[in-house]
Amino acid sequence: MSDIREGEITLPFDPAIMADDASLVFIGRVSSPWLSRSECPKNMRAATELGQPARIQIDAQWCEGLRGLEAASHLIVLTWLDRAPRNLIVQKPRHASEPRGTFALRSPARPNPIGVHVVCMTSHDFAAGLIELKAIDVLDGTPVIDVKPYYASSDAISEATTLT
Amino acid sequence: MSDIREGEITLPFDPAIMADDASLVFIGRVSSPWLSRSECPKNMRAATELGQPARIQIDAQWCEGLRGLEAASHLIVLTWLDRAPRNLIVQKPRHASEPRGTFALRSPARPNPIGVHVVCMTSHDFAAGLIELKAIDVLDGTPVIDVKPYYASSDAISEATTLT
Repeated sequence: MSDIREGEITLPFDPAIMADDASLVFIGRVSSPWLSRSECPKNMRAATELGQPARIQIDAQWCEGLRGLEAASHLIVLTWLDRAPRNLIVQKPRHASEPRGTFALRSPARPNPIGVHVVCMTSHDFAAGLIELKAIDVLDGTPVIDVKPYYASSDAISEATTLT
Repeated sequence: MSDIREGEITLPFDPAIMADDASLVFIGRVSSPWLSRSECPKNMRAATELGQPARIQIDAQWCEGLRGLEAASHLIVLTWLDRAPRNLIVQKPRHASEPRGTFALRSPARPNPIGVHVVCMTSHDFAAGLIELKAIDVLDGTPVIDVKPYYASSDAISEATTLT
């Protein structure tokens, strides 16, 4: 699927084939301006800087689950990064000097390719399953698997650090 | 599975049975002090206040993926909340005056029961697959499906608000 860069390591098995511990149902899709990997921003900060809005369309059967979500200014959206390989366990991002483990990166390539996105909700029409976002860092058409309210009290750790 | 409270709504189908859009592989388990729902803290803030450490055991085949994770002070851990029902779409939490949609709550009961936990890593032995945590708000034995570094630059939105 991807070219392997120097120092990268693939697993001797493919999680995409062996995965059967639990199963997901898609609850909707993201509509974003990003049609290819090369133009898709690599993280939420880059997406926000580009200033391009996006939206989530939740399928009709789940729309009652949105009741009350208007109380939240920000959401945690979980996506299924369906175009990412699942068998890369050590990766060499372009920006990094050394190869790094998949769990030390936010790369979409991971055994369970789930994206975690903290997004700002700008408007909504929950009856129609629509959630408008300031920005998001995933490809157009990416499946959505969960939406949660973001709570600054437990989710915002401003003193968190990374050495890289 | 759960008693239904007044105002709660179950789906006319069970996502646990219909779910086959994508499949997960468990990469490890949480060891926590919480053996029953009644004693398990309801969120990370409550867990942290209780001051009980916990750990994640990543299975051997995935341990290379932890390389470089020592650079992060905090992690995003995704868990599979395997003891939660998946068919509750409107819920009435004890603390809430009105029933609310599942996606407006952090309840473990949801179509795809994935927990998002922002945790503080206190120590680690990555060769052994061990990650020690200050606290976590899930039951002992809960499967882990992903670990990511927490980036304050995109994940910490201290101005995020909720009206509830």
